[in-house]
Amino acid sequence: MTSQHSVVPAGPKRKFWGWGLANEGVSAAERKSLGAAVAGRYDGASLREVAPPEVSDFDLRPSRLAIPSTLRSIVTDDPEERLIHAYGKSFADCARMLMRHVPNPPDLIAYPRSEEDVSALLDWADGKNVAVIPFGGGSSVCGGVEPDVGDDYAGTLVIDMLAMNQILEIDKTSRAARFQAGIYGPQLEAGLKPHGLTLRHFPQSFEFSTLGGWIATRGGGHYASLYTHIDDFVEATRMITPQGLLETRRLPGSGAGPSADRMIIGSEGTLGLITEAWMRLQDRPTFRASAAVGFATMEKGAEAVRALSQSGLFPTNCRLIDAAEAKNSGAGDGTSALLVLGFESADHPLAPWMERALELVSDHGGIFDREAVNRSMQPKEAADEAAEHRQGAAGQWRNAFIRAPYYREVLVGLGIIVDTFETAITWDRFADFYKGVTGQMHDAIKRITGQEATVTCRFTHIYPDGPAPYFTFQVLGAEDGNLALMLERWREIKIAANAVVTDLGGTVTHHHAVGRDHRPGYETQTSQLFRETLAAAKHRLDPGGLLNPGVLIDPVGRAVGQSGILRKGN
Amino acid sequence: MTSQHSVVPAGPKRKFWGWGLANEGVSAAERKSLGAAVAGRYDGASLREVAPPEVSDFDLRPSRLAIPSTLRSIVTDDPEERLIHAYGKSFADCARMLMRHVPNPPDLIAYPRSEEDVSALLDWADGKNVAVIPFGGGSSVCGGVEPDVGDDYAGTLVIDMLAMNQILEIDKTSRAARFQAGIYGPQLEAGLKPHGLTLRHFPQSFEFSTLGGWIATRGGGHYASLYTHIDDFVEATRMITPQGLLETRRLPGSGAGPSADRMIIGSEGTLGLITEAWMRLQDRPTFRASAAVGFATMEKGAEAVRALSQSGLFPTNCRLIDAAEAKNSGAGDGTSALLVLGFESADHPLAPWMERALELVSDHGGIFDREAVNRSMQPKEAADEAAEHRQGAAGQWRNAFIRAPYYREVLVGLGIIVDTFETAITWDRFADFYKGVTGQMHDAIKRITGQEATVTCRFTHIYPDGPAPYFTFQVLGAEDGNLALMLERWREIKIAANAVVTDLGGTVTHHHAVGRDHRPGYETQTSQLFRETLAAAKHRLDPGGLLNPGVLIDPVGRAVGQSGILRKGN
Repeated sequence: MTSQHSVVPAGPKRKFWGWGLANEGVSAAERKSLGAAVAGRYDGASLREVAPPEVSDFDLRPSRLAIPSTLRSIVTDDPEERLIHAYGKSFADCARMLMRHVPNPPDLIAYPRSEEDVSALLDWADGKNVAVIPFGGGSSVCGGVEPDVGDDYAGTLVIDMLAMNQILEIDKTSRAARFQAGIYGPQLEAGLKPHGLTLRHFPQSFEFSTLGGWIATRGGGHYASLYTHIDDFVEATRMITPQGLLETRRLPGSGAGPSADRMIIGSEGTLGLITEAWMRLQDRPTFRASAAVGFATMEKGAEAVRALSQSGLFPTNCRLIDAAEAKNSGAGDGTSALLVLGFESADHPLAPWMERALELVSDHGGIFDREAVNRSMQPKEAADEAAEHRQGAAGQWRNAFIRAPYYREVLVGLGIIVDTFETAITWDRFADFYKGVTGQMHDAIKRITGQEATVTCRFTHIYPDGPAPYFTFQVLGAEDGNLALMLERWREIKIAANAVVTDLGGTVTHHHAVGRDHRPGYETQTSQLFRETLAAAKHRLDPGGLLNPGVLIDPVGRAVGQSGILRKGN
Repeated sequence: MTSQHSVVPAGPKRKFWGWGLANEGVSAAERKSLGAAVAGRYDGASLREVAPPEVSDFDLRPSRLAIPSTLRSIVTDDPEERLIHAYGKSFADCARMLMRHVPNPPDLIAYPRSEEDVSALLDWADGKNVAVIPFGGGSSVCGGVEPDVGDDYAGTLVIDMLAMNQILEIDKTSRAARFQAGIYGPQLEAGLKPHGLTLRHFPQSFEFSTLGGWIATRGGGHYASLYTHIDDFVEATRMITPQGLLETRRLPGSGAGPSADRMIIGSEGTLGLITEAWMRLQDRPTFRASAAVGFATMEKGAEAVRALSQSGLFPTNCRLIDAAEAKNSGAGDGTSALLVLGFESADHPLAPWMERALELVSDHGGIFDREAVNRSMQPKEAADEAAEHRQGAAGQWRNAFIRAPYYREVLVGLGIIVDTFETAITWDRFADFYKGVTGQMHDAIKRITGQEATVTCRFTHIYPDGPAPYFTFQVLGAEDGNLALMLERWREIKIAANAVVTDLGGTVTHHHAVGRDHRPGYETQTSQLFRETLAAAKHRLDPGGLLNPGVLIDPVGRAVGQSGILRKGN
């Protein structure tokens, strides 16, 4: 018998059924405020909250795999570990945990300490026909780490990269560093800070996701323009595959053949385990400028943002929030769209950039507080700046953004469906797309649930040729704690969202990956021939089809198909 | 018998043995000036110029393939057409033409008018075991279009995309357009100009290369920073493969799986024929600012450029030229390095950008003419601006840049080796790399030729993590018109350059593609496992291994190996 203690790396315990750490979540004050908001919104509904689960609530299927004797020091079958790695962090994942519904727990969990460990694990899995699920922070919201692989495998092994979390090298001259892939966001930034450097990749999951996960899923980050995805920061990668090491060379740029890094980026654990990466960094910004700009309508705001996106000014922040979403997040009164605009630099004062940006937004009817903009550009102490960041419309919005995953835990337990989907579309089609998606999703949700829903929108990132709109919807999913009914309705809504977004010309995901839950949309938007080509490439690296079966594509010769939550009964 | 006239699209005739159009080349004045320069430089050498060839000089191997009866309207075996498509435009290609040495002419040339034509050609080739060489402008300088495919094929068919050259759609709102891939640079820009748009992709080959070629080879363009490669402008692509159409969706950004476009970009004709692309465009710039900055040494200049590259200012032009190269191109006296710095915008005056850039270069010892910089920022008539562009150090340099491929024709014929190679390296290694490459290449050339060579350097593009240095070398290759000896020496130099650049950590090519001539370096810098993965992907699209065999990688099951000029005897 293996002691769990020696296998699982030391550190705070993760919450198996929801966001963040065990014993963390919404505060009493937050719960009260949420409760009041929900009671007001769903006045008359019979809401009953399902209590958070305990490990002892679950009668897990026994592990189908014996811990290999040579890997005892890094492999465990501890029940809580199996629960922690049973799901990602999607709405449906949280709901299923609250339902105590875990039909496909992983059989074993491994914590490799080295690339040799990773290779040994893959060798063992290959010999035993064991499916392997690479695991970073486990913050997937699209079924990317779910060990539901069908009956074709002897069992499932999750490889959690948590112990491979070191900063190996810092090159201040080129502003780059080499990291192990299992490093979490806060640890990565803490290690860079003494050197005056930062990756500045701050997804909503920042605290609870890893560099390797960001790369594997093409995560989106801090910058609204220019460096929208982690893709842009990857200088070189190392990946261990069942067929050996695949390594790329550290280069600022190259034209030598199709990019190997671009094959690895977005591979979602299907080609190998990313073990290391050289990442491009930034100097820590010392100059800032920000503005909150109001627009009569989302469409008017979008015209202004289009002008900004094509101006060559490259705002760091350019978050256009429609009236309904601004109101929901406490950043507006619901009468106007809000643009949160910001610039930052470690090199130069930003007044000329902001001045030109304000001219552009004014040209499109934007209204802003000139003095607040001026204040934002004044040099200030770090502490003052932090305080200012927490205040005002932008601060309100930011706080809601960070706390949203925690709030959702409470709402799910009450039977309320609250979820998001994000996409991208060219500017020429945006107005129709926005109208089409919000309208069609509103109608679909009403048809599915019988209830009125809110469907709101913001832009997370912008490009010269189009925005990345991010939609949030909320609806009463079911009453009296009937989470099974709620989940069935969520499933139908998710399938509708896949179809609406891709039928109207968008991508099924701008920065949340494909996983299992976006496969229907992915198959609409890509050529089958490309997916088969990707499968052929995978087959060279993973001939046994062991790696993350069911995610993105099916392995050659294995019909995993639509596994995960979108399959009825899961 | 097919009439060549009806098969070959109307238009100016291309020069089969050198750069540009038939009957174009260096002017009498240029020839005189070149002659004087050469005589001065190689004083005492016995130079004898080999005369340009005529079609009638060649006794080509008869075509091994009969023109298929169903494809008579688009296929020809005309001898001049076979010569036009026998080589690209590298130094060695020109030398071999002057030597009247064409052992591997293509058997047939096709000019498809439609995607259906392309499919029909691929079907026919598949049935006959015919190797297919996709051909854009044919300006490859790395053996990318050479029909030297070994003995494993029944013959070779070049598919020239010249007739598929239309602008199909312009989306001014998103600033994008859909083009057929065979469109040449000038035609593309002329079609956009009335709409106030521009692709701004101006490689040295601009006049004589195509959009499809730029995409297939990851061509480098106009912008020194930010948009360095054509990659950054590709919004979506269509490619016809032997297994059918592979099409990507028009999206400003996406995180859905590994990028299909990034597999197509850089595939160098080995995966299929790119037939169309949606490209991201720019508004035509109306604001400009430029400066010519002198530095005591290349290393000092590089420090300034590093600061610029990491400033977030994103200069459009940032060409650092070492003292020797500045002198050779008539833009300096050989005592100092020269930085040609420029900004352009369609949106805003550039004084704040330029002011900060000048602070940075001053901090690193750069010297510039303040009044000239001020003049560069004054609004001016287009005609004045064009005149100014032709004058001064920058203008001198630009003229030399455009005319260089023509000058080379004359020099090759005199037995002088003049060639370039370009790479990229991170900043932390740049100083050693620059010293290492120039020193080792100087020594290698001396060992190979017994002559003193010049090896000079400039930066073509810059990144926050490193520059893309571009090296030019010149040496007396052989006397008395002994081009065979010159070519053998060139071959050894090319092999040395592959090794030196990649052994010192660089990429074998920053924007000239791999083709055949960079395969040794490509195999040093990439994982074999990646190349095999790429071959597996290719095998799905091109199971017969018909497409551009010998370029980039070998098709699965076909041992083409190092074909082209690097194989002795070619």
